[in-house]
Amino acid sequence: MPNPCIICVAITGSVPTKADNPAVPITVAEQVESTQAAFEAGASICHAHVRNEDGTPSSDPERFARLKEGLETHCPGMIIQFSTGGRSGAGTERGGMLSLRPDMASLSVGSNNFPTRVYENPPELVDWLAGEMLTHDIKPEVEAFDLSHIFQAVKLHREGRIADAPYIQFVMGVKNAMPVDREVFDFYVRTVDRLLPGAPWCAAGVGAGQIRVNDWSIAAGGHART
Amino acid sequence: MPNPCIICVAITGSVPTKADNPAVPITVAEQVESTQAAFEAGASICHAHVRNEDGTPSSDPERFARLKEGLETHCPGMIIQFSTGGRSGAGTERGGMLSLRPDMASLSVGSNNFPTRVYENPPELVDWLAGEMLTHDIKPEVEAFDLSHIFQAVKLHREGRIADAPYIQFVMGVKNAMPVDREVFDFYVRTVDRLLPGAPWCAAGVGAGQIRVNDWSIAAGGHART
Ligand SMILES: [Zn+2]
Ligand SMILES: [Zn+2]
Ligand SMILES: [Zn+2]
Ligand SMILES: [Zn+2]
Repeated sequence: MPNPCIICVAITGSVPTKADNPAVPITVAEQVESTQAAFEAGASICHAHVRNEDGTPSSDPERFARLKEGLETHCPGMIIQFSTGGRSGAGTERGGMLSLRPDMASLSVGSNNFPTRVYENPPELVDWLAGEMLTHDIKPEVEAFDLSHIFQAVKLHREGRIADAPYIQFVMGVKNAMPVDREVFDFYVRTVDRLLPGAPWCAAGVGAGQIRVNDWSIAAGGHART
Repeated sequence: MPNPCIICVAITGSVPTKADNPAVPITVAEQVESTQAAFEAGASICHAHVRNEDGTPSSDPERFARLKEGLETHCPGMIIQFSTGGRSGAGTERGGMLSLRPDMASLSVGSNNFPTRVYENPPELVDWLAGEMLTHDIKPEVEAFDLSHIFQAVKLHREGRIADAPYIQFVMGVKNAMPVDREVFDFYVRTVDRLLPGAPWCAAGVGAGQIRVNDWSIAAGGHART
């Protein structure tokens, strides 16, 4: 097994609710239970969003703290990754939980369109979030919603604002951002190989493209987000 | 001469001022004079921004009207392209001059970062601008600041929101967006060839990369923005 595949489980995400699927874990207790099942099935990273009681996205550090505590107890050794994505808060609020020092955190490095709005990651906020991750010794997972985001990650690394070779995730299938496209996927892989030789990477297909992108990623030597 | 190169001259742009270079044409009279010189030297398209008296960017339809009139008189047959770019106004203000029916207008179809801020093109605004161009029979030039913007242009065309095969311009060299990169340039060309077989395209290098991108574009059978 020269290069085991890392499976990252996004237990909750920021969009689906119990109305979409009653199995979506919303409370911290549900999230811990759901993560433990994935951990026991082989997942190594937990990508975590937290929710308010009513199911709406939250960036409450207290909830993240309780989730982290639960995961450390029930999933010993699992890598905990907090989302700093833009659906759960605005501006620096998105990184308010980074002082809890999770192992990893997601980091968006550019802006793009989402289905109904602009996903805003202004340069100043990107710098601040990257700085918080440096300060708290958190490994970023760079979310590449478009090709230029790979170049931005490389630039941040060259400038010392991302400590090690960035771990980049290709995100495909978000409406109005990058669609699920095989040629683009292959070019993403070649671009990471060219700019960050030897660096691991992963890929996520959102919605209907999930399994397809998982297949591509695993076959090409990458890692997978479920 | 099977495929003559179309030269598009951006006489003013939205950023440089007379303090940067005294030759930057600011008044409508200066813009017409400068465009005429470029027209006589072989440029076929005039990409136009207008400015306020103090040199700051403007989206004033009255100024665009005077510019169009001057260009029609002094550069007969030249293709007039108005910029709807985001530095000169917010929201639908950016398209307030489209009822003047220029031959072409620039159209951004996605969002991305600029040197110090987010270049915001929310889906609703993109749809509105594309709709205005349809209504007034204006040919859009799609500004691709990133790879997904090519896919967005194709989608708009498939949905009938861009009438003919979109004319796409690859924009490289804007800080925090796509850098000037030869592999990416080649992939852009292959992507347009794949998704819009036979469609013409052009490329612009911003700042230091301008001549390099012009060279690449002309050699690869594309058109050029100066
Ligand atoms: Zn997430
Ligand atoms: Zn347990
Ligand atoms: Zn322009
Ligand atoms: Zn004249």
